[in-house]
Amino acid sequence: MAKVAVFGYGTVGSGIVEVIKTNQELIAQRAGEEVDIKYILDLRDFPGDPYENLVVHDVEVILNDPEISVIAEAMGGINPAFTFTKRALESGKSVCTSNKELVEAKGAELLGVAKENGANYLFEASVGGGIPILRPLVTCLTADHIDAVTGILNGTTNYILTKMAEDGADFDTVLREAQNMGYAERNPEADIEGHDAGRKIAIMASLITGKNVPYEKIYTEGITKITPRDFTYAKRMGLVIRLLAMYRERKGKFFAYVAPAMIGKKNPLYAVSDVFNGILVHGNMLGEAMFYGAGAGKLPTASAVAGDVVDCVRAHGQLLPGGWSTEVLDLSEHTFREKKFFIRVPAEDADAAEKVFEGSQRIDAGFADEVGLLTQAMDEVAFEEKAKQVPTMIARIRVEN
Amino acid sequence: MAKVAVFGYGTVGSGIVEVIKTNQELIAQRAGEEVDIKYILDLRDFPGDPYENLVVHDVEVILNDPEISVIAEAMGGINPAFTFTKRALESGKSVCTSNKELVEAKGAELLGVAKENGANYLFEASVGGGIPILRPLVTCLTADHIDAVTGILNGTTNYILTKMAEDGADFDTVLREAQNMGYAERNPEADIEGHDAGRKIAIMASLITGKNVPYEKIYTEGITKITPRDFTYAKRMGLVIRLLAMYRERKGKFFAYVAPAMIGKKNPLYAVSDVFNGILVHGNMLGEAMFYGAGAGKLPTASAVAGDVVDCVRAHGQLLPGGWSTEVLDLSEHTFREKKFFIRVPAEDADAAEKVFEGSQRIDAGFADEVGLLTQAMDEVAFEEKAKQVPTMIARIRVEN
Repeated sequence: MAKVAVFGYGTVGSGIVEVIKTNQELIAQRAGEEVDIKYILDLRDFPGDPYENLVVHDVEVILNDPEISVIAEAMGGINPAFTFTKRALESGKSVCTSNKELVEAKGAELLGVAKENGANYLFEASVGGGIPILRPLVTCLTADHIDAVTGILNGTTNYILTKMAEDGADFDTVLREAQNMGYAERNPEADIEGHDAGRKIAIMASLITGKNVPYEKIYTEGITKITPRDFTYAKRMGLVIRLLAMYRERKGKFFAYVAPAMIGKKNPLYAVSDVFNGILVHGNMLGEAMFYGAGAGKLPTASAVAGDVVDCVRAHGQLLPGGWSTEVLDLSEHTFREKKFFIRVPAEDADAAEKVFEGSQRIDAGFADEVGLLTQAMDEVAFEEKAKQVPTMIARIRVEN
Repeated sequence: MAKVAVFGYGTVGSGIVEVIKTNQELIAQRAGEEVDIKYILDLRDFPGDPYENLVVHDVEVILNDPEISVIAEAMGGINPAFTFTKRALESGKSVCTSNKELVEAKGAELLGVAKENGANYLFEASVGGGIPILRPLVTCLTADHIDAVTGILNGTTNYILTKMAEDGADFDTVLREAQNMGYAERNPEADIEGHDAGRKIAIMASLITGKNVPYEKIYTEGITKITPRDFTYAKRMGLVIRLLAMYRERKGKFFAYVAPAMIGKKNPLYAVSDVFNGILVHGNMLGEAMFYGAGAGKLPTASAVAGDVVDCVRAHGQLLPGGWSTEVLDLSEHTFREKKFFIRVPAEDADAAEKVFEGSQRIDAGFADEVGLLTQAMDEVAFEEKAKQVPTMIARIRVEN
C-alpha cells in the first residue's frame, strides 16, 4: 500500500482527498497497489470533517515518516510550499502539485532536487486544470517537434470575455458579476492582468524547450482595456476576442506573449467559451491538436493531481520523463512576429490613419464618432512606428488567425 | 541504439520512416538512445527511394534478427499483419501499429501474447490518427472513472456531412467529390456505413473497461440516408449533424452505438468540422475533456506510431499500462438510453404524428409537403413503438445534446 500526504486542505486539497477516496478501487487497480491518505497538513483544524483525524499541523511528522512515498501539494503560493516541497524531495518523496506559482518560479530547481534524490516532481494540474496536457506533451507527442502552442489558459478571463460579448456589458460590470458567482477572485489581478496565463505558458515553454522560461520575461497584456465596442467590431468581422497565451519557435528563435487577440471561426479556439480552457499544440509532423476542458475547479484540478499520484506510485521510484534545467531560455522579443492588427480611430482621423496603415480594411460597426481598421500583417515594431503617427488611436487588438 | 523495422511501405509506413528520419535528434533525446530504421518490409521494390536498400521481402529476416527490438506495423488489414505481429511479439519484439482492424479484431489476443513475452503492443494511432487519446486515457486520467466517450472518429464522413451542410448538396455528389479529392476511398463502405468509427469506439470501450468489445456487437448506422432537407431542419434548430460514436456506462450497464445525430452549440463537438476528429471524454471527477485534431493523414498518423516507438524504446522491456482481456464485455442494448428524436412526416400526417409523439415541437423548415417534429426524450424501445404508428415517417435522426 502506498501512503500519501496532502499538503493544504483548501479547495483543491479537499478535492484530492475526495478523488482518491471516491475512486479508491480503480486507483488501486491502475497504481498496482492501494493508495491511501495518511496525513493532511493544514494549520487549521477541521472538527466534524470525516478526515479530521488525519490532519496534522507539523510538517516534520510527514517528512520524517518513511512510510510516506508521495505528497500532493495544494497549498498554493511560493512559501512555505517551496521549503516543504524541497525538503520532501530531498528525503526521496515524490511531490505532485497544482501550484503553478511555485512550478513557474522554482520548477527548475525543484526538478533538479527531485532528480538528485530519485524522486518525481509532477504538476499536470498546474496548466489547464483537469485537462491532460503536460503529460501528453512529454509522453505522447515524443516524435514531434513542438513549434507552437496557443492557449486559452485562464478560465476567469475567458468567462468575462464571453459574457461581455454576449451581454454587451462593460468590463467592470462583468468582473463584479464573475466575482459574485465565484468565477473571479476578490483580488482578480493575477487573472485579469494575464499573469496567471503567463505562468502557464511559461511552464509549457519550459517543458517543451527543456530550458527555464521565467514568466516575467514574457510580454503580458491583460483584458482590462477591452470595451463593449471592441466586441461590436469583432462580431462584424466574424471574430471573437480571447486572451491568448502563445509560444512559438521560428528558425531557432523563441517567442512568447500573453495578450487579448481576435480569432476567427477556422481557429479551433474560437469555440472555447465560458470558463473553459483550450490548448492548441502544433507539431512539425502532427499538425494541430487541441486539448479542451475545465481549466480550473475543485474536482477537475484534483483529478489531475491524483493522476500524478497514481503515476508516481506505479513508477516505483523510477524517474519519469519531463522537466527542464535552470539555464534560462533566450526568448526573442515577441514583437518580431507578423500579424494583423485591429485599430479604432476617431472618425475625423480615419482618412489619415488609412494613409498610415496602407492597405487596411475599414470596418463599419455603425458608430458615428469612430471607425475601425483591420491592418495588413506586419511585425510589432513596424506597427508601433506607424501607431506613433496616429496619436488619437482609441484601441488596438492583435488579430491571430 | 534501438533498431526498428517498419512493416508496410505504403502511406503510413513511409510516413513513419519520414517522421523518424526527420526528427531523429529529438527522438534520440526522448527515447534515451538513437532510434534507427534497419528494415522496411514490403512485397514491392522501391527503386530510387532513398531507403530502397532497407527494403526486405521476407519477414523471417526481421523476426530472426535479435537486434530488432521494436516493429512499426502499417500493413493494414487482418492478414498477414496478424501472423507477423503475433510472431514478433512471441519473439519479445514490441509492436506499434496504426492498424485499427487488427487491434479491434485481435487486440485482446495480441495484448495477451505481448504480456507473456515481455513485449508491448501499442496502438495510439488506431484511434484519432495523430490525436493523443488512448495513452492519455491510460496514463493521465488514471484517477477518474471514465463513464462516457462521444467521438467524431471518422474524418471522411465528417467531411461529407460538413460539405452537405455548407453546399446543400446530396450525399452521392459530395461522396464523389470527396473521392476525387482523396478524402474518401474508392470503396468507401467502411467509412460511410460507420464501421470504421465502430471499430474505434470498440477499441476505446475495450481499453476503458478492460474487457473485449467486438465492434459487431455495437449498433451501427451510417450516413447514407442523410439528405439535404435534414440539414435544412438542423440549421433551423441551430444544430449540426455529425456521425457520433458513443460509449456510455450507467449504473453498471454499458452502452455503445454509432449513428448520425444532431448536436447543439453547447456540445464541444459542434465545432469539429471537415476532416477533423474530436473525442469528448467524461470522467466522474474530471467532467468533460475534449481531444481534437487530424484523425487521419500520413504524417499525423505516423507521428502517433513513432510516439509509440519512442515509448517502447524508453520502456526497455518494461510492460506499459493499458490493455484488455479476451473476456467479452456484456454490452446492453443501446436502445435503453433516453434521448430526443427528430422526425420528418408528410404534411398530411403531421397532426396524427403529433398525437403519437405527444409534446413534440413542430419544426417548420419551409417545405410545403412535409413537417419536422422534435420529440420528447424517450428510450428507443418507446420510440420504435410510437414510430410504428407513423408508417409514413420520412426520416428520423437522434438528437444528442
